[in-house]
Amino acid sequence: MTMFQVSSEAATSAPRAQLYLDDLHVGQRFTSRTHRLDEGQIKAFAVQFDPQPFHTDKQAAERTFFKGLAASGWHTAAITMRLNVESGPPLAGGFVGAGGELSWPAPTRPGDVLHVESEVVEVTSSRSRPDRGTIVLLSRTINQRGEVVLIQKAKLVVPRKVAA
Amino acid sequence: MTMFQVSSEAATSAPRAQLYLDDLHVGQRFTSRTHRLDEGQIKAFAVQFDPQPFHTDKQAAERTFFKGLAASGWHTAAITMRLNVESGPPLAGGFVGAGGELSWPAPTRPGDVLHVESEVVEVTSSRSRPDRGTIVLLSRTINQRGEVVLIQKAKLVVPRKVAA
Repeated sequence: MTMFQVSSEAATSAPRAQLYLDDLHVGQRFTSRTHRLDEGQIKAFAVQFDPQPFHTDKQAAERTFFKGLAASGWHTAAITMRLNVESGPPLAGGFVGAGGELSWPAPTRPGDVLHVESEVVEVTSSRSRPDRGTIVLLSRTINQRGEVVLIQKAKLVVPRKVAA
Repeated sequence: MTMFQVSSEAATSAPRAQLYLDDLHVGQRFTSRTHRLDEGQIKAFAVQFDPQPFHTDKQAAERTFFKGLAASGWHTAAITMRLNVESGPPLAGGFVGAGGELSWPAPTRPGDVLHVESEVVEVTSSRSRPDRGTIVLLSRTINQRGEVVLIQKAKLVVPRKVAA
């Protein structure tokens, strides 16, 4: 089930329902809008945060592990965050991450059009804090060929309705 | 044991020894140079990748979970990458991550001066590929008060000397 789907590149500016811990259940799914990545974006991020030839230099990248220019994995993670914040689950209190796991099964390339598919896989009330709990959100960032470029399991802090 | 340490803000431009899988062993430690984070950097990253009030708006941030402006966790992760790439373990072939775990035990604030302390906690030869293997690098990103703001366990692909 896809609850929220905006397939245009443009961010939706319509107000979205705020989801509290009480509104979330295992199996809930969300699909984000898309983001198109280009060489300029890949290099700009890499120059600032991950200055390695396979992220900054198209020619040099050919001779590396990646066999061509690839986005920094942290760039893919940052784009995933933007897509989830703007068009993923509309969590009350926003996306507040405590931690998680991530893996990059395939490289992200110039021209890739990414979207994020997320699913709630755990919902836990806090024993010590009645005003909040945590969820585990499993997100897959997927390119235009259906290849998964990032898998992320994030533990997020979500307020309860009692606190609202 | 700290093998490589550059405590100045300036990146070292001296060539550094290239470490192959064969050169790495459990317990090896590395300390990066420092990076000073300010409000402008925090907002610039957040506007692009994590546009939430606690990362973009000092006033609004006071009334959130973070009780003040905090850097996006992905910003802290990206800075950690930069520090490791430039002044962490000088891995032959660069930092090529397959995935990992991360957690943010404390927020990163404007004015924080961060450095990264890393330790090799696993070294594994590939069974199928004699030219490479993987290491698990445990990195802690630490502020000027000694507080750990990011803990990361990254699985990295490292070439073997036979391939060089």
